Amino acid sequence: MQSFNFSAGPAVLPASVLSQIQRDLQEAQGSQTSILEISHRSATFQKIIDQAQKRLRDLMKIPNDYAVLFIQGGGSLQFEMMPLNFANKTGKVAVLDSGSFAHKAALAATAVGKEGVEVASSRAEKYRFLPSLPSDFDPADYDYLHITANNTIEGTAYHANNLPQTTGRLVADMSSNILAEPYDITKFDAVFAGAQKNLGPAGITLAIVKKEWLAEQTLHNVGPMMSYQTYIDKDSLYNTPPVFAIYALNLVLGWLEEQGGVEVMFKKHQVMAGKLYDYLDHSDFYHALVKGDQRSWTNVVFTTGDAKRDAAIAEKADKAGLHNLAGHRSVGGFRASMYNAQADEAVEALITFLEQVRKEY
Amino acid sequence: MQSFNFSAGPAVLPASVLSQIQRDLQEAQGSQTSILEISHRSATFQKIIDQAQKRLRDLMKIPNDYAVLFIQGGGSLQFEMMPLNFANKTGKVAVLDSGSFAHKAALAATAVGKEGVEVASSRAEKYRFLPSLPSDFDPADYDYLHITANNTIEGTAYHANNLPQTTGRLVADMSSNILAEPYDITKFDAVFAGAQKNLGPAGITLAIVKKEWLAEQTLHNVGPMMSYQTYIDKDSLYNTPPVFAIYALNLVLGWLEEQGGVEVMFKKHQVMAGKLYDYLDHSDFYHALVKGDQRSWTNVVFTTGDAKRDAAIAEKADKAGLHNLAGHRSVGGFRASMYNAQADEAVEALITFLEQVRKEY
Repeated sequence: MQSFNFSAGPAVLPASVLSQIQRDLQEAQGSQTSILEISHRSATFQKIIDQAQKRLRDLMKIPNDYAVLFIQGGGSLQFEMMPLNFANKTGKVAVLDSGSFAHKAALAATAVGKEGVEVASSRAEKYRFLPSLPSDFDPADYDYLHITANNTIEGTAYHANNLPQTTGRLVADMSSNILAEPYDITKFDAVFAGAQKNLGPAGITLAIVKKEWLAEQTLHNVGPMMSYQTYIDKDSLYNTPPVFAIYALNLVLGWLEEQGGVEVMFKKHQVMAGKLYDYLDHSDFYHALVKGDQRSWTNVVFTTGDAKRDAAIAEKADKAGLHNLAGHRSVGGFRASMYNAQADEAVEALITFLEQVRKEY
Repeated sequence: MQSFNFSAGPAVLPASVLSQIQRDLQEAQGSQTSILEISHRSATFQKIIDQAQKRLRDLMKIPNDYAVLFIQGGGSLQFEMMPLNFANKTGKVAVLDSGSFAHKAALAATAVGKEGVEVASSRAEKYRFLPSLPSDFDPADYDYLHITANNTIEGTAYHANNLPQTTGRLVADMSSNILAEPYDITKFDAVFAGAQKNLGPAGITLAIVKKEWLAEQTLHNVGPMMSYQTYIDKDSLYNTPPVFAIYALNLVLGWLEEQGGVEVMFKKHQVMAGKLYDYLDHSDFYHALVKGDQRSWTNVVFTTGDAKRDAAIAEKADKAGLHNLAGHRSVGGFRASMYNAQADEAVEALITFLEQVRKEY
């Protein structure tokens, strides 16, 4: 039976990457040592982490005045590190509350002793659309504006042509659409992403920060592990990094280069998610929860309008080899996550299944 | 050619664990999914993390009033979390400065806005022995006393029969000898250890904290990712954990159970390190840098007394299949790290090599 994994993350990895990992488990690159046993101070690993950084710079066209950093802790730790490192003048962080993770980022800014301010929110409307920056928003009142580029749970995205317009500093959580669609990195002052959706297995987080902005900061009571400057000074090797996760990330980036890079991925996502949205828009049984050009290309959320029926269908899908289609508990319904490594046939298999089920009801 | 890895960490893993990982890379435990792709919210992973916790409780005899937590960031992040969570009454942390990592812990406590106080230090004597608690040490002046149970770089250890005697709270960094020698966990109020020496690959850190102590605390400006209570409340699943690292840790713990547990490991280390110390003590060419019962059972540091000669011999050893024997740059000479998964034959091979080289000089 064919099997497809629509998990929102940790997500599917390319088959060629899994095969390479299997080989390197015996002996990594002529080192007489398993990739799980190599030292982070070895020449073998230095080559890997350097290559990962270079690949990210090439794929995302990251200029040299941005640092590319590898950090543990996931996006949630970035919710704390960003305000600790960058909310030092006004002490306030403006947040466009477009979903659960934006909301968490605002709360985290306040938790670390700064002030997270939701300058606009679509929470009351169940995050079915993106909040817009209020017309009276004054960037001078805040150290920066935080956005979630792609709302994994709610299935919306601030695409490159739809970014909030601000003359102030802009920070983006790109955890669920990094390298899946093109953004001009120079529009942002900092970007971060957990690896487990588009970049590799869970356990490593990417942060890209504008060095000139960081140089302006005076930090208070921030330890070395929570300071971006430490990661810059030590090339992300201040302490033992998650060697395997960085190694796997680097393999995924190599695969992505072979595929042709971000523009090719973007077309793939437009085709895949496009087919599913098209099917849903023409169905009178299912419907997409998000409308128009705010739709995510990586996370498609939909429902039949009946929570019990949705749950039964998701369970049936699982038995049919279409895994992890249940929506997040805060939204319900279905969520089909299709990141970079998702098989092209996955969406066809899903639509065929959905259509078959529809006929049975 | 036989090959042995004496790295101080990331270190050797059991061969059976590496084989199991290779198998699970195709499909983990009947899940139709690679271990690198399974969701942290899946039943498969819940079973893994529950089992890892249970195995740790069994192996270390951890009572229920201690929480067993899985956190990212390594020992270095624990250097910041411990004071943020526990230095709330006096705001001071007493540190026995027995090595580079104890010193870092003291600096980190100060960096996060508390005060790290080195109440005794052997730094001036190059950390060749362990500092003792001063006779006028008053635990009431500090929130807790921090010790490094085993000094990875310097090759000393506070063994179970040699722990500092204090009526106050005691926190131990056990990164390099956890599960390698027995400690009575109830002597400590918190213990932590990065995985990459005795527990598995790099990328996951274990923290064991006394819940009653944590309940006394009022935290200030500590975000959810830096608060132990979050990890307790969410069973270490507040956000996406490093799934693979926890899975690998659990396999290593399973292997350790099969071997017979901590007491068996302790005997193994006493035999292995014992043979090497014995050889060094009877040599007029090499000598161990640490004397007597403060010697580490996992990290043996030694020298010929000539830095250039040491470096040349370490390079020769590498070519002969004995890898990563160079001492840390702050100590020089040699360091043979032999953690739980080290092959019994490694020490024989090393002694044979050392003796052969000695004859050549």
